[in-house]
Amino acid sequence: MTRKQQAEQGIITEDMRAVALQEGLEPEFVRDELAKGRLVIPQNAGRKLSEPRAVGRGTSVKVNANIGASPYRTSLDEELAKLDAAVAAGADSVMDLSLGPDQIRIRRAVLERSPVMVGTVPLYQTAFELSASKRDMADMTMDDFLATVRRQAEEGVDFMTIHCGVTQSALAAMNSQGRLLDVVSRGGAFLVQWMRKNQRESPLYEQYDEILDILAEYDVTLSLGDGMRPGATADAGDCAQTAELLTLAELTRRAWAKGVQVIIEGPGHVTLDRIADQMRQQKILCGGAPFYILGPLVTDVAAGYDHIAGAIGGAYAAMHGADFLCYVTPAEHLRLPTVQDVHEGTIASKIAAHAADLSRGRTASLERDKAMSLARKRLDWKAQVELSIDPAKAGDYRQHSEIGEDDVCTMCGEFCAIKRLNS
Amino acid sequence: MTRKQQAEQGIITEDMRAVALQEGLEPEFVRDELAKGRLVIPQNAGRKLSEPRAVGRGTSVKVNANIGASPYRTSLDEELAKLDAAVAAGADSVMDLSLGPDQIRIRRAVLERSPVMVGTVPLYQTAFELSASKRDMADMTMDDFLATVRRQAEEGVDFMTIHCGVTQSALAAMNSQGRLLDVVSRGGAFLVQWMRKNQRESPLYEQYDEILDILAEYDVTLSLGDGMRPGATADAGDCAQTAELLTLAELTRRAWAKGVQVIIEGPGHVTLDRIADQMRQQKILCGGAPFYILGPLVTDVAAGYDHIAGAIGGAYAAMHGADFLCYVTPAEHLRLPTVQDVHEGTIASKIAAHAADLSRGRTASLERDKAMSLARKRLDWKAQVELSIDPAKAGDYRQHSEIGEDDVCTMCGEFCAIKRLNS
Repeated sequence: MTRKQQAEQGIITEDMRAVALQEGLEPEFVRDELAKGRLVIPQNAGRKLSEPRAVGRGTSVKVNANIGASPYRTSLDEELAKLDAAVAAGADSVMDLSLGPDQIRIRRAVLERSPVMVGTVPLYQTAFELSASKRDMADMTMDDFLATVRRQAEEGVDFMTIHCGVTQSALAAMNSQGRLLDVVSRGGAFLVQWMRKNQRESPLYEQYDEILDILAEYDVTLSLGDGMRPGATADAGDCAQTAELLTLAELTRRAWAKGVQVIIEGPGHVTLDRIADQMRQQKILCGGAPFYILGPLVTDVAAGYDHIAGAIGGAYAAMHGADFLCYVTPAEHLRLPTVQDVHEGTIASKIAAHAADLSRGRTASLERDKAMSLARKRLDWKAQVELSIDPAKAGDYRQHSEIGEDDVCTMCGEFCAIKRLNS
Repeated sequence: MTRKQQAEQGIITEDMRAVALQEGLEPEFVRDELAKGRLVIPQNAGRKLSEPRAVGRGTSVKVNANIGASPYRTSLDEELAKLDAAVAAGADSVMDLSLGPDQIRIRRAVLERSPVMVGTVPLYQTAFELSASKRDMADMTMDDFLATVRRQAEEGVDFMTIHCGVTQSALAAMNSQGRLLDVVSRGGAFLVQWMRKNQRESPLYEQYDEILDILAEYDVTLSLGDGMRPGATADAGDCAQTAELLTLAELTRRAWAKGVQVIIEGPGHVTLDRIADQMRQQKILCGGAPFYILGPLVTDVAAGYDHIAGAIGGAYAAMHGADFLCYVTPAEHLRLPTVQDVHEGTIASKIAAHAADLSRGRTASLERDKAMSLARKRLDWKAQVELSIDPAKAGDYRQHSEIGEDDVCTMCGEFCAIKRLNS
């Protein structure tokens, strides 16, 4: 039985209790929401995470960090350093998106080392293996793909992004309306190539039940990928994106029927005025399934600072219902992220997630802000540094002010308003 | 006649034409909104800015960068380097908040060098001069203060923050409700000290008309300071803040009656869920006067990254009506900002302002994003770098990827979705 099937039968598992404690929720609430599909605990049946997490209704907003080598740059040590940096900065999850000759070794090492859930995109492995054996992507068979899914599930992957909603209907919607940037999802692009060349429906849609059977066997959470996500703000919420979301809604219900936990993936590039509507639409169509969003980036021109554009969009989206924020790093659109980029991206997303938790009135989050403000009132710099989202950076800034043991800072000195009136 | 009085009489001045051209507006629209007080062009009557700006209704969202020495750290060269960094990163305005022995020399140098409008907080100068002559802040006379205002107006300051709304009624509201962090505004703290010690109404409120007369003489725009702005998210929108805003609303109408252009200053620390309401309230109470906000910071715990917390709040606030964003740097709450902090703070606010402009459907902003997405579609890296919010950083990231002349990036390499499907 999967975790979801257990919840449906009224069983409260150990990990339901663990996340209930983390979140300050009743275990019964966690069980009931999990049974309804509105909350997930991504954890492979063969694994025991030291830090399991719940994603979805009633829980704090979670943050994922994407790591992984690329065909251009492959280093196991560097990817493990990224994993450590992400976890140290507070990531609740990592996805290993490695593509390249070392991808299997890297994934296994990440799975072994990570205290938090690990996600993958199995299609990347299949695509790379086809490419390495000089076969065209369009030659992919469903056996190739299912073998990868099973292999990764056996290895312990906790959640997998699979782009089962990239179908002929989404493609037709895209062709009918036209788009500024057609497809910017790697997985989506593979499938569109496949469908165009084979002139057939996507096998990931046609043989969806076979995928579900493997996922259910290992209780792998299905993250339904958005291969049609807009890669330009001009395309946000268009027909292609909406057509795919409708298919994801159908696929959500089919997965639930087989006991598979589901997350829905979302955009991408979306201007601020369209975010709230998109969050509401996803919840309505997909029956409240958790929404896992990339950014969204609120502008296309923030290259070098896309972690900030993503934090703006992510905070606002999570206030309006998004549950899980996939970080964006300063390297987005420009290069594979470095360890420092991973750190900055994770911190920016944590700020967005925390801002959204505050906006939802989450008690623990409000208490943390209150403690910081009290530390400011007391001019207690040690506590201020410790309560900061990144104590190392805050401490560094404080130290570089060369103010010694003074109780004020170099901004106002003796004219400090707090010193004059509050302390 | 002030610019506002000219507009009221139907006159279109040269600078109204200049900003209309910048903004893609009709000069008549600029004149009419200026006459109504919903748009301002801050520029001292004695100056001719090479880059004047309009702030308010129908115009793009503007960004201010605070610079200025502190009693702990005073360097003319460093402050001019901050000015240059802010302007290079796209700041529409700078405020010289210098406090300390060199403040007059720094202000004059900034006024001489800045191509964009310059704002100040005259009370800082008065407070420092009192302190330097060993007099207590509470000994300040209105003559002291008016002399400073006149001197700075003569020197050419374009807009001044004056905290005329820090009154006994705001103080009573604060005392009645209680607050986590009483007063975090330097100007506000001076005035509260003065009122407590003298047991009298604030002279800046009682002798408001005399202030207005000087401002009108030089057509200095009045930025009505929010000395009661919340310095903790827990205090956002409380009685003290609201009481002060009500006074600012009254003072706005009195300033307009004397032909003085007005901007209203706003918070501070505000959680995301309270921002939209605060923006609407300011517009209703203050008759549509432009709203100039500091941040707002959507959490108290982002020390070291307050530029990101401020960009989240600023983007959302500007979508809901804020007109003018005062940047926050990574150094906020920790130290006086460095030149690099000024750069990062300005860029973060520019991203927020641009995101808000997109959300309001501003044509020029949408076109810029479209151009970037088309450059991505063409894999035109030179254009992508040039169209970025900070071409130097984007170019640096691109170069460090060591990808040479390749048409993809190190993230996906040959598996680039855009290369496969779009180009």
